[in-house]
Formats: sequence, C-alpha cells, structure tokens
Amino acid sequence: MNEFELINRFFTRPVKDALVGNGDDAAIVAPTADHAFVVTTDSLIEGRHFLPTLDPLKLGRRLVHVNLSDLAAMGASPRYAMLSLALPRIDETWVSRFAEGFWAALDEFGIGLVGGNTTRGALALSITAFGEVPVVSGRANAMLRSGAKAGDEVWVSGELGGAGWALGCMTGEIEASATREQIAAYEAPTARVALGISLRAVATSCIDISDGLLSEANHLARASHVSLALDFASIPTSLGDVLADAKLRAQATQTLLTTGDAYELLFTASRDRHEDVRNLLAHHGLRGARIGTVHAASTETQAVSVIDSAGRMIEISAQGWDHFA
Amino acid sequence: MNEFELINRFFTRPVKDALVGNGDDAAIVAPTADHAFVVTTDSLIEGRHFLPTLDPLKLGRRLVHVNLSDLAAMGASPRYAMLSLALPRIDETWVSRFAEGFWAALDEFGIGLVGGNTTRGALALSITAFGEVPVVSGRANAMLRSGAKAGDEVWVSGELGGAGWALGCMTGEIEASATREQIAAYEAPTARVALGISLRAVATSCIDISDGLLSEANHLARASHVSLALDFASIPTSLGDVLADAKLRAQATQTLLTTGDAYELLFTASRDRHEDVRNLLAHHGLRGARIGTVHAASTETQAVSVIDSAGRMIEISAQGWDHFA
Repeated sequence: MNEFELINRFFTRPVKDALVGNGDDAAIVAPTADHAFVVTTDSLIEGRHFLPTLDPLKLGRRLVHVNLSDLAAMGASPRYAMLSLALPRIDETWVSRFAEGFWAALDEFGIGLVGGNTTRGALALSITAFGEVPVVSGRANAMLRSGAKAGDEVWVSGELGGAGWALGCMTGEIEASATREQIAAYEAPTARVALGISLRAVATSCIDISDGLLSEANHLARASHVSLALDFASIPTSLGDVLADAKLRAQATQTLLTTGDAYELLFTASRDRHEDVRNLLAHHGLRGARIGTVHAASTETQAVSVIDSAGRMIEISAQGWDHFA
Repeated sequence: MNEFELINRFFTRPVKDALVGNGDDAAIVAPTADHAFVVTTDSLIEGRHFLPTLDPLKLGRRLVHVNLSDLAAMGASPRYAMLSLALPRIDETWVSRFAEGFWAALDEFGIGLVGGNTTRGALALSITAFGEVPVVSGRANAMLRSGAKAGDEVWVSGELGGAGWALGCMTGEIEASATREQIAAYEAPTARVALGISLRAVATSCIDISDGLLSEANHLARASHVSLALDFASIPTSLGDVLADAKLRAQATQTLLTTGDAYELLFTASRDRHEDVRNLLAHHGLRGARIGTVHAASTETQAVSVIDSAGRMIEISAQGWDHFA
C-alpha cells in the first residue's frame, strides 16, 4: 500500500457541501451566508501528547476532540477539517483503527474532511478545524477570551483533574492509581461543542482548558484586563477521594489546578445570568460550577488567585504546561 | 524563553482584515464578498523534505512557497496562513532566522498569520494556507485537475529538472555537480501565484508539479478522464548540458520526468488560446512551453506517454514520489 492508496482507502469520503472537496490541489469552501469561519490547528505528537500505548481508535477520537475544543471555546459550529499525518510506516491495522475513531468523531458533528497530507516521519497528527459563527453588522458573534467584566461570575463545565491525575499515574509521576473514569477522561476527552454554541448568547468570555486551569485562567484574565478570584472548594472535580487523603492532598491540589487535558470550558457570565448558566449545564448533562468572581485588575493583586476553604491563598508554582519547560 | 514567549516574539503580528486574529482559542476569518476560501495544508519534515544543512531562512521561505504552490494551481489569491512548528529545542538564532524567511515570504503576498501551534518534537513544519477565488452563480471560479479536454494543449511554466538534479547531487544519488541555479531552484522554489491567478481565465485544468512531471500528469489525466501525449524535447529544462552528456543522459531524463520540488504549474488550455498563454508566460517573465497534447482516454494507451525526438516512447519506471515507497 502506497501513500495515495492509503489516502484513498482510509481518508477519502465525499464532502457534501464543499464547492470543491478533497482530491484536487486544494479544497474550496465557503461559510454559510452571514457567517464567518472559525479556524484552529493543533498537533498530537507521540510521547509528548499521548502515550505510545494509546489505542489508535481512541487516538483518532482524541485528535478530533482536542481541536473541536478550541472551536467550542469560541462557540462555533464545526464544519470541516484537514488532516496531516506523519507515520513511521504504513501499518494497515493501526491506520484502519485510527481512521475508525477519527471518522466516528467527525461523523458525530457532521464534519467533512476536505484535505490533508501524509508523509513518513515520527508519529505526529495534526488537524486544522473549521467551524462557523454568525456575523452581525460586520462583527463575529463568538466568545472571546477578552470579554470578562468585573462582577461577572467565573464558571467551568464538567469536572477537572481526572485526566491529569490519570496521566500522572500512568507515567509514574504520581504514586497512586487512577480510576477507570479518570483514565477515560484522559484518553477520550469530549469537546463541549453544543455547550459552547449555547453559551455564545450567555457568556462574556470563554477559553478551553487544554493546558491547566490556572494557566487558562491567566490567559483569560490578561486578555480581559481583569483579575480572577477562584474558590478552590467549589471547583468540580473527580479527585474528591485523593484530595481527602492527607498523603496525596498536595499532589491532587497541584493536579487539579495545573494539569491539562481536561478540555472543559472556563467561562465568565454576568451575575444575572446565573440561573441561565445552571440551566444550560443541566440541559447538556454536565456537572460544572461557578468557581469564582471577576474583579478589576489592580497592580497589587496577581491576575489569578485561588482561596482554600479556610480563606488562605493557595500558592502554586507551575501554572500550566509549557512544551519547552 | 518558553513556548508563549517564542510565539509572542517571533510569530505574532496583527492581522488587519481578520474578524478575530491570532491570540484567542481560534481565529475568525471570512472570504471577500462573492468569494470562497481555497484551503490546503502541507508539512516539511527534516531529512524527508529538506536537508538538515538547509539555511533556516530558506526553509522559512520554502515552507510558504510549497503551500502557496497548491493555491497557485487553483488560481487562488493568498489571504491567510496557520503555522504548526515542532522543534527539538528553542534555538533563538535558528528560530529568528527561520521567522525572517517565513515572514518575508508571507509579506510578499500580504498574507496574515492567523494562528498555529508550537510543540517539542522532531523538526517538522506545517502550514495551512487560505486563498480565495470568486464564486459566480454558486460555482467557484477556480482551476481544477479535471477540466482538460481532448484537443487541448499541455503546458508547463518555468523550467523543470533543476531542483531534482540539485537534490540528487547533494544527496550523492547522482554523481555529478549541480549549478548554483539548480541548487537555488531546489532550496528556494517560487510558487507561481500571479501566473495561476491569470491562468484562471485561460486554462482548462491545472496542477502544481510538487511530486514529478509524470506523476502530476497522471493525476491530471485521470481526474480529467483523458490521456496526455508529451513531447520530451519540448519540456523546458535547465538540464540541457547533462542531457547532452552520454554518461549522464539516462539519469537526467529520469530526473526531468520523475523528480519533484519544481513547484511549476502543469496546465492545459484550448488550442485557440495558444497565443494568450504565451503572452501570459512572457508577461510573468517565465520560460514555460507547450509540451504536449490532450487526447481522448482509451483503454489501450496509458494515461501519459512521453515521446523522444526520434518518435520513440520513453519508458520510465518510477512515476514520481511516494513517501512510503
């Protein structure tokens, strides 16, 4: 099987609404009338973003959801994707299983694969994802990081910490074991696409939690020129048991605040939309919670502070994930 | 310098006409009214698509032009790009020089960098490029591979063979030396963007020559359901000297027909547009030539045949580049 046969067999399906779909030098696509494209690209590299033991079916799913999470954070509806594959060799069983997980995830959202490229190299996978949002009077109706206002409430969707805990346990960095649910949170994250689209009418700002809660909260606070005060005890988490364990508490706290891979949404909304947000989370079957308050930025306070149940500031050194740290 | 500082320092500039530029979870862009986006993605991997000795300034330029060549083949005007970088480490001198070549190439076409991602890994570079073409009555006005008609003339822009010859000499596969011009053709190819836009009104089909003349001619012939008869002696080339050398002739012939990296356009046009095509090539300062004729496909002839000056069929085994061959 050569490169062209691989593409034809596993990665070519008709795209129903593209002006020109895959198979030419490039694809031609247009947003729906009065909409604009929301575009993002993300890569997964073996050993860096996923363990070599990860089932390729889950890897295919994960690649899609990791990218869709960025679209979800903007409140965009997914439309198209392009796939770049670097493979050390053509292993038909592996590619077939990867493709199965990949297409199942695309099909769930009706996304058309409009192009890509394949080459030989260390295992690396990239998607460029296209979503769309309405444009009203020349302005995109999307959630940005920069819209948080003093007085707004800070929210997260879902539960945090499970994915990071599972990864720490699997790599041996944490000397404990992860539950099946925590491992699933790491291996098969779910982009909050439908929630993101609903939140567009409610939230004042939004970001997805790919790199860790504190890191993302800092990005949002800086983009909005505000500070965020977070209440540790209110953060929804699947780490309740290990947070209650004196031996593991410090590591669990660090995990909950700084590890990535959650792919939940961190967002802000006006206080008078509190019930609307609660109803939206419930409607989408997600836990989620209000975890803090937006304050005016001051030169004295740090952009993000976290208070424990005794009212003390939690000091955390590593504020997220830097690929070169 | 960490990942975010690297992105801020080298890869963040305002994008003047995006609805939302870089710096958020995703960018938001729309095509000009009555246009659609033409999108393509391509990767360069060290040791596979470029030699480790390549000056990063040239690598930055090359990455852009390799992608724009696909837009050129569709007749699209470049608009935006997204960049994915995998770097083994942050070498500021290297990144700075890469960024210089990269931005110079983007600026030449007024392209805005709207996003991307950076990670640690084996050196690999990817661009997703966005161009645009007009849409008239719901149909994209672009050049496809599938429009060639029996009776059309087959053309190429520029000169072929130089880049492939230089690569063969540099890797030692060819025991000869390359001229400075041939090395420049390999290291610094130029996407035929302006020519592609002009050809939209003239050509019936088009493809860019990234993988070798015969391979691309086969793609075009199959997409158009025609066969192509090419006249070897009419192919414009910088390999005249080595083709005239009895010891090197066979290797030069193979190089001219099957090696990639030329990034010229292979296209077809009706016979009555012959003078228009000649004038366009001259207007853009390009050599180029008519190299053959389109015939109806038949089950007896192969999709592409090449005839030498004595009227004999040239047999070439390897018809282009397969990343996994």
